[in-house]
Formats: sequence, structure tokens, C-alpha cells
Amino acid sequence: MSQAIQQKFVHQVIGHSSEQNRLATTKKLGKGKAPVNIALSKYWGKRDSVLNLPTNSSLSISLPGLGTETKIEVLNPQTTQEDQVYLNGQPLEASNAFANRVSRFLNFFRATPQTFFKVTTVNSVPTAAGLASSASGYAALVLALNDLFSWNLDNKALSLLARFGSGSASRSLFSGFAIWHQGQQADGLDSYAEAIETTWPEFCVGLLEIDVKQKPVSSTQGMQNTVETCALYQAWPKQANQDLQTLLKAIELKDFETLGKTAEHNALTMHATMIATWPPIVYWQPESVEAMHKIWHLREQGVQVYFTMDAGPNLKLLFLETEKPAIKQAFKAIKVLEPFKD
Amino acid sequence: MSQAIQQKFVHQVIGHSSEQNRLATTKKLGKGKAPVNIALSKYWGKRDSVLNLPTNSSLSISLPGLGTETKIEVLNPQTTQEDQVYLNGQPLEASNAFANRVSRFLNFFRATPQTFFKVTTVNSVPTAAGLASSASGYAALVLALNDLFSWNLDNKALSLLARFGSGSASRSLFSGFAIWHQGQQADGLDSYAEAIETTWPEFCVGLLEIDVKQKPVSSTQGMQNTVETCALYQAWPKQANQDLQTLLKAIELKDFETLGKTAEHNALTMHATMIATWPPIVYWQPESVEAMHKIWHLREQGVQVYFTMDAGPNLKLLFLETEKPAIKQAFKAIKVLEPFKD
Repeated sequence: MSQAIQQKFVHQVIGHSSEQNRLATTKKLGKGKAPVNIALSKYWGKRDSVLNLPTNSSLSISLPGLGTETKIEVLNPQTTQEDQVYLNGQPLEASNAFANRVSRFLNFFRATPQTFFKVTTVNSVPTAAGLASSASGYAALVLALNDLFSWNLDNKALSLLARFGSGSASRSLFSGFAIWHQGQQADGLDSYAEAIETTWPEFCVGLLEIDVKQKPVSSTQGMQNTVETCALYQAWPKQANQDLQTLLKAIELKDFETLGKTAEHNALTMHATMIATWPPIVYWQPESVEAMHKIWHLREQGVQVYFTMDAGPNLKLLFLETEKPAIKQAFKAIKVLEPFKD
Repeated sequence: MSQAIQQKFVHQVIGHSSEQNRLATTKKLGKGKAPVNIALSKYWGKRDSVLNLPTNSSLSISLPGLGTETKIEVLNPQTTQEDQVYLNGQPLEASNAFANRVSRFLNFFRATPQTFFKVTTVNSVPTAAGLASSASGYAALVLALNDLFSWNLDNKALSLLARFGSGSASRSLFSGFAIWHQGQQADGLDSYAEAIETTWPEFCVGLLEIDVKQKPVSSTQGMQNTVETCALYQAWPKQANQDLQTLLKAIELKDFETLGKTAEHNALTMHATMIATWPPIVYWQPESVEAMHKIWHLREQGVQVYFTMDAGPNLKLLFLETEKPAIKQAFKAIKVLEPFKD
């Protein structure tokens, strides 16, 4: 049942060309490249897990310096019985969770059940460590499929497909700020991301890597547990959507203080819903908390710096170019990115 | 206006003897002693800050080994123009926050505006480090006043007065488990604590002191900020009251697993509301998070241990006597108390 709904969604997005391409693909290789994105107003909770539809809209900034490059080829059906997935140069077992998830996504794009793909994906970010490699990963994969099958899809359709692969991937098709509209329709065709045109050259993101190990609870599992067991979660969608409106205005006005406060409060509120889940989901490590207190201390001293965190222990610092020396002084190991310059 | 409401409350609790005792106290010295209590289902948020009335009921366990001893004397009005407050052997300046708060409480009990008191209070717990010294402090002070003025108040009246001094003090008049009924009345006369008769000799509480410094945000200020700025807070009172019912049943059935889970989830939910407050209230230190992860790891290994935390960085571990060796092994510096044996 849910597979039929999913297949219908994919057909609606790709359109008539889909069927033709399945039979008539002549290209040997498709390529795609997409950046990581960091949400300033988070996606946490699905209203529909079959089509990957969120309970709230979200807003992000892409980091062009980091992301995923993916190549996809159709394998010879005579010699191959399964997909081949390479991650960062390593072949993955079919039983690997990542390879498995990719194959299930590719099921919707096979010419016949005997069509298998070779997917070669290279991340310039650690996988599953809160730097949203699945976002850039699914965006790059969708771009690679679009190239392989010569679909010539527009950004909206690409974003819809990427979202279907992994929610926040919908936002990784763009540079700069992007907004993912939660949408209202049951068919999921109005839940996609768009670029916000504003550029902000002074805007900096500092990556503070606390821990790059695989995280103990996946985002998908984490948000499901939160929705099911966290009483506080009921207030989240409304706050998230209010934060998004505040952020949109702050971006328009280049009001960094409001942007910083809102993004930090939003991230802490998302983590609060995790912490109040049972069993508790605490992605924070001791070093995460140490860094938070350090940031608050810097702020008391007048440094305009805020942070956001995704479903992991790492912090992403938000500040303007003028504060770069103070930030680098305080955090020796920080990697500073300039999303509108990189 | 609010002072008149407060004075009326005090009169209603103490009754007629109040006026007489003000004029006819012959005792020179009153003494009181009260234990610290640790809430298994927390008090967080006031519905009325004039009378100190909570938005939800709460449930605690007293730690007879730790607490406050207080002596109170009436000073000679000829030679004294202010209260004298001694804390742990040190005289406090009148401007000291603690001394000031005690004096404001004592204003309701002066025979004349020129009556001043000497209060000598000794805590066997660090002040304001999340071990609720204000709870045992106000309970002991009320007992000392009751002794000084020979009020002969019953437990309900003592609890009402202690609550008026500091909410959780209402629960520090009892040993063992106690429940503080939130009450419904505007006059605050139905918001007091009672003992739960069940004893549980195997019940242990382990104190893990992370940091005994004065905390950066007082509970009073913290809960006010939370109520005002935390959208998630709206779900708290209902969860807190549900948790309390679950705990009552677990105590009755001596179902330790349910008690532990419920207490830990309740504490984390309270901290979640703090974390989602703006500016954020994060009492956790790096070592707090380290200890949490260690506890969850122990639980994965089959050790039945849970924790609770108050408005501070310290953890209070909950376990039964059988797990004491494993706990002491894992946490070398832990102080283990047995509330029904100490």
C-alpha cells in the first residue's frame, strides 16, 4: 500500500518522461553534486513517514565548501544481481544500512526489477555525525539520476524527489538560504524547498567538531520516538513555524542578532524535545556542553556569536566576519566557512 | 496589595494564637531541624508568585542524613536595628541575597516593626548547588518559629508556612516520601505537603556532586523565565501530574523500574523546559552529561540505576540496595544515602 503511494508520488514528480527514460536511457553515467545545509530553523518530526512529509517548515543555509559528489551507472543485468554502492572509495555490503537505504530509494527508478545501479558517492563531511551528509547525499543522488535519465527536472521537482529520499535533502539543491515549505497536501506535491535570493557576504558558519562517530540514534528513529513519547513536542511545530517567520524577516533586514537568537533558541528547543523523549535522546557530549558555556561566556563579553546544533554532538557557530578573529582565538580547532564567498 | 494578601495568608495559617504570641512570647530561643528532600516528580513553575503556589503537584523523598538546623532568637530592640543572620557560622551582610530573603520572610512574624531576630542556620548541604538547601532551610526556620512562639501548629500548617517561604520546603517537614498537593484555591490554604506512609528500606539515593558553586540562575528566576519564554512549557503541568500518579502507584507496588524511569523522564523533561527557555538555562556541566551517559551505559549492562536532577548540575542516582556495589564501583566519589535507614 505505502509502496504504491510512493510510486505514484515519484511518477507525478517525474512525469511522462519517466516511463520513456526507463526504456530508452542511452547515457552510461549520471553525475550530481550538492552542498551540505545547516538548518537555522529545524525539521524535527514527520506528519507522514511514507512520503517523508514534515510537521513544520524549515530554513537553512548551504555550505558550498562541503557536500557530496555522486555518480550513478546502470549495471549490466547479465552479470549483476544487486546494486553496488561505494562510499568514500569503499564498496559497501548490501546489508549495510546506508547501502540498503540507497537501494530502497533506487527501487523507484529501475527500468525493470532486474536493473541494478552502481552508485559512487564521495562525502566531504563525516557520515551521520550531525553534519547532515544524508541531505547532500540524496540531493546529489537525485541530481545524478536527473542527469543519467535526462529528465531535465526543474528545481521544484528535484527538491520534491530529494525530500522523498531524506527530508532535509530538499534544501540541499540550493546555495545560500533556502526554505522548505512543509506543504499541506496529502500527496506531498507541495512540500519542497526554494532558494531565498538574499546574499549576505559577511555571514560565517564555524564548524566545531566534537565527535564524528556514527551517532547512536538516527534522526529518523529519533524524531519518531520524540513524536510518540515527548509530551513537550506538541508545542514544537508552532514554535518552529514562528521561528521561521522571524528568521525570514531577520535575513531580509540583515538583522544578525535576531537571526542568531532565533536559530540558537530553535536548536535548543529541538534538543529539548529529544531530551524529554523516553528513552532520552541526548546527542550532547560533555564537550558540546563545554562549548555552549564558552559561547555564552563570549556573548557576555560582547562577542556576537550564536550556535545551532543538529541531531548530533557538534556545534555550528553563527557569526559575522567582524567576529572571526575572536572566534578563532576562542576555538582553535574551528573550521570557518563563508557560505556566500566559498 | 500583595503584602496584605501574604499577611492574611499567614494569619489564616497561624490562627488566633498568632497575635497573642507576638505580644506574649516568653521563650528566648526556638529550634528547628529539617531534612533535604529530592523531588522524584518536580516542582517547576508558579501559578501565583505572591503566595508561592505551584502549577503542578510534586513528590519527593527526604534524605534524613542531610539538612538544616536553625535557631532563632528575638533580639533586644534597644540595641538592634536589623536581623542578624548567620549561615554555617558566618555572619551575613544585610544586603546578602539569602539574609535579605530570610528577613523578608520574618517580616510576617515580628511583634512590632522594631522586633528583630537572630537566625543561626547550619546546612549540611552546599547552599544553592541544586541540593535544595532552601527547602530544608525554610522548613527548619518554620519549625524554629513554631518552637519560639509555641504555636503548636500541626503538619499541615507547618507545611503551608514552609511553602510560603520556599515552595519545595513544604515537603521537607517529613521523612520518607511526601506529596505536595498543588491545591486549587486562590487563598493557597490547600497547597501543602503530606507524608506518604510507605517505607522502602532498600531504597538508595546516590549523590554525585558535579559542582557545588552557587548556581548562575536561581530556581525562582529560572522557573519564571521558563513560564514566560518557553513554548514547550505548556505541556509540563499535565505531564508532571501524570508522572506523580505513576510514581504513587510505583511506590505502593514497590515497582522500582517504573519509579526510576518516571523520575528520570520527569527530571529530563523539566530540564528540557529550561533548555528551551530564552535566554537558555543550562544547569548542566560537561561532567553532568558525562555522568548521564555513564548511567545509561550501566543500564544497558543490566544495572538498575536511574537519576534525577534539580535546578543545578548535580545528579542524584536512584537504585536499590542490591546495586550498591556496582554503583560504588562505577562512581568512586558517590555519597550513598539510605533514606529509610539513615
